[in-house]
Amino acid sequence: MSLHLIIGDKRYSSWSMRPWLVLEMIGVPFTDQVIRLNQADTDRLIREHSPSGKVPALKSEHGTIVDSLAICEYLAELFPKAGVWPADTAARARARSACAQMHSGFMGLRSNLPMDLRRDEALEVIPVEAQADIDRVIELWAECRSASKETGSFLFGKPGIIDAFFAPVAVRLRTYRVELPADAAAYVETIYQWPAFQRWQQAGLEEG
Amino acid sequence: MSLHLIIGDKRYSSWSMRPWLVLEMIGVPFTDQVIRLNQADTDRLIREHSPSGKVPALKSEHGTIVDSLAICEYLAELFPKAGVWPADTAARARARSACAQMHSGFMGLRSNLPMDLRRDEALEVIPVEAQADIDRVIELWAECRSASKETGSFLFGKPGIIDAFFAPVAVRLRTYRVELPADAAAYVETIYQWPAFQRWQQAGLEEG
Repeated sequence: MSLHLIIGDKRYSSWSMRPWLVLEMIGVPFTDQVIRLNQADTDRLIREHSPSGKVPALKSEHGTIVDSLAICEYLAELFPKAGVWPADTAARARARSACAQMHSGFMGLRSNLPMDLRRDEALEVIPVEAQADIDRVIELWAECRSASKETGSFLFGKPGIIDAFFAPVAVRLRTYRVELPADAAAYVETIYQWPAFQRWQQAGLEEG
Repeated sequence: MSLHLIIGDKRYSSWSMRPWLVLEMIGVPFTDQVIRLNQADTDRLIREHSPSGKVPALKSEHGTIVDSLAICEYLAELFPKAGVWPADTAARARARSACAQMHSGFMGLRSNLPMDLRRDEALEVIPVEAQADIDRVIELWAECRSASKETGSFLFGKPGIIDAFFAPVAVRLRTYRVELPADAAAYVETIYQWPAFQRWQQAGLEEG
């Protein structure tokens, strides 16, 4: 089995971080290849691998799979013992719902607080639509924790796709110094203490 | 088992159509409840069911599941014999990738050609970003058909989640009278001849 993940800059590419963290939590050998975003040849280089012109894309024995969520579902099926979705049906449905909402929404947060691992500065003013998204994320996290029967500091106990999906949000909340209730702040710290995240973070901070 | 789907107007709500078509293709008994969008009490009525304030939402024995894609994945697991994803691993990965790309993208198409089942009129000019999305959709459909080993006029042979996801795109292409290559036009006709789609369409056309 060969798994090769095409991604954008680790410093900036929040969508790339997600399947990378899932590969790490599964513990399967894989390689990654960074294509620098917003360069003159970015589009050409991405299209050498990905017909949609988008990253992340996973090159696998089953072809090239484009999109963060589609890659995660593929990996969940390929490695069922890794338990990257919750085992309980109701918890799994809730985790998928939260990931899907992240996947298609939260535009106010995404556009106003783009991810930059090196940032350490608050916005002067958080736009209303970004604050509404932040409030909703905090609610979603609480809903996940209350739906989980597992112990552990991740949203459903141990690290899963759901945590990979919200890790870039944790980065935004920390690097933009957003004030948080205690539960949400503790979850952000859980992400920052997660060794898989730390490996990505270190690589991102070392990028030029 | 009780399945109750909260949806927006059938005439307009493209996201609601998707899980509704999947429930129909599975053939499981379910009820639906339309909440009229863009009314004074829309938000209040939706929030009685859906904590995110969004439709579609499926009320099930495993709780309320928000988001079209999360509902479809839940149903795919609950009814494995229905085969709503392709059985072949590579085909399934490709179908999930296409659905995920639809789920998070194609904003140029979605914002410039909103779904209205009653419409029958071309745009004076198709904006560049909408045309780029249309071209990409046509490519995606061709990629799906070429990845499929099944015969049949749907994207992977028989109706699946992928066709539910692209049915609202077929509606847009037809009702905005977009010129299409033969293969894409044939697929739009396949959707329009699909009995499950026709049931939704009829209900949508009868809405006030």
